[in-house]
Amino acid sequence: MTTSHVIENVSVNKSFGGWHKQYSHQSTTLNCTMKFAIYLPPKIASGEKVPVLYWLSGLTCTDENFMQKSGVQRIAAELGIAIVAPDTSPRGEGVANDDGYDLGQGAGFYVNATQAPWNRHYQMYDYVVNELPQLIESTFPVSDKRAISGHSMGGHGALTIAMLNPERYSSMSAFSPICNPINAPWGKKAFSTYLGKDKANWLNHDASELMRRATQFIPAKVDQGGADDFLTEQLQPETLEAAAQANDYPLELCIHEGYDHSYYFISSFIEEHLRFHAEHLNK
Amino acid sequence: MTTSHVIENVSVNKSFGGWHKQYSHQSTTLNCTMKFAIYLPPKIASGEKVPVLYWLSGLTCTDENFMQKSGVQRIAAELGIAIVAPDTSPRGEGVANDDGYDLGQGAGFYVNATQAPWNRHYQMYDYVVNELPQLIESTFPVSDKRAISGHSMGGHGALTIAMLNPERYSSMSAFSPICNPINAPWGKKAFSTYLGKDKANWLNHDASELMRRATQFIPAKVDQGGADDFLTEQLQPETLEAAAQANDYPLELCIHEGYDHSYYFISSFIEEHLRFHAEHLNK
Repeated sequence: MTTSHVIENVSVNKSFGGWHKQYSHQSTTLNCTMKFAIYLPPKIASGEKVPVLYWLSGLTCTDENFMQKSGVQRIAAELGIAIVAPDTSPRGEGVANDDGYDLGQGAGFYVNATQAPWNRHYQMYDYVVNELPQLIESTFPVSDKRAISGHSMGGHGALTIAMLNPERYSSMSAFSPICNPINAPWGKKAFSTYLGKDKANWLNHDASELMRRATQFIPAKVDQGGADDFLTEQLQPETLEAAAQANDYPLELCIHEGYDHSYYFISSFIEEHLRFHAEHLNK
Repeated sequence: MTTSHVIENVSVNKSFGGWHKQYSHQSTTLNCTMKFAIYLPPKIASGEKVPVLYWLSGLTCTDENFMQKSGVQRIAAELGIAIVAPDTSPRGEGVANDDGYDLGQGAGFYVNATQAPWNRHYQMYDYVVNELPQLIESTFPVSDKRAISGHSMGGHGALTIAMLNPERYSSMSAFSPICNPINAPWGKKAFSTYLGKDKANWLNHDASELMRRATQFIPAKVDQGGADDFLTEQLQPETLEAAAQANDYPLELCIHEGYDHSYYFISSFIEEHLRFHAEHLNK
């Protein structure tokens, strides 16, 4: 397939010797204008292509939150990894929406909607798996080595997308992911709206389900705050852990006492995640 | 003086093994309810009191921006320094305000206003020099060792407050400070409003003026982005540098090519500032 990509630079900031840049582009998958952010480490000046970590953010976020609050650039600069942060849903006036913070714009849940009116734009799975990497790899000095990570709804997105495409990612990780959305209020609301009432169509987007029946493994790291208000009802890491144990999946899961659901938690442990991904990206 | 302080905890987040906390309190100096943030490093668990770096933010900021975006907690945790970030002005419905982003709420400029209606609340100099440290040192496990830093308007605040009170701070630093506000549009607008038209009353709040006539020196570090849109008209680091040279003031000033006025610049160099302050705080 040949696609011509038109992308427009929105902002540039020098950061730790590299560059944080925001772009907008017309997404053919999502049928709207999308923004994303990329951090390019200083290493690109050498002419060598760098691997990419895709970061999927949580409910209500845009491309900005992780880039502004995680401190990831320091470690990405050191390790020579590019970071790409897409938005969390299609956007714009003509895009279906909902009054809730957990549905519609800002809450795409990284699935391909099958239900009207959502199916016209809400195709975040295809966007993250196909269109965005194609755009990134044809535009920037990056290799086709990829890792994927995310937070909360984006942690769910990272784990499910990686397990559905194990040949595309060398490692996956998540902070505070929604581990079992088919049995959590956020997931049930989003999946019934985007995918319809038939729960059989939800199973492919549940990290615990995928981990329990995976036949191809990629290294996985999950960190969860022990003082996270959403831990018991929405996140359910114990279900993911049970699935990993049942299937001997290589999952490193750690509960960190006292940490909550915020970027203060993410920033405290993002360095460990980048070093984990670097180890597998550089194999 | 004996004062009873009533402060209320607003939020708590664990961060790098320590704690980020927001508080509100009734300020007698500012005559309104104020919020501030404090980062307490893990070292306080040992029972040993830690020194404090006061951080003064720039125009439009609150106590939140620096704590969320600078990544300071990682280094403060390592070095055993508490960080205190006050708001940038008095706040509230009864507090005088202006439609401009560079005057009124969010733009206190760290001076004591003498002009009505501003003088009723806008006493940020006294708040930062006296009331806030008294509150911090009587409430938290911190020593009376202090350093001060800030960004833009807050860089102006940090340098002027430190030079007017060299016995109270062991070191001072700034990112992109307004170095010569008496000759810059932001400074002239704020000072004429808060301090009146007589420029003689402005001189004590101009870092370049103070540096040129200082008789007691404290170590000073200033970093400035070379691609900062405000560099020439508003910030004027060359004036500060000339003042330091004329008076043999111990100023380390560095211009960083390509960096702008954003927190991406601050986060890239905050570690150097903390190590600079730690060296002097621990003497």
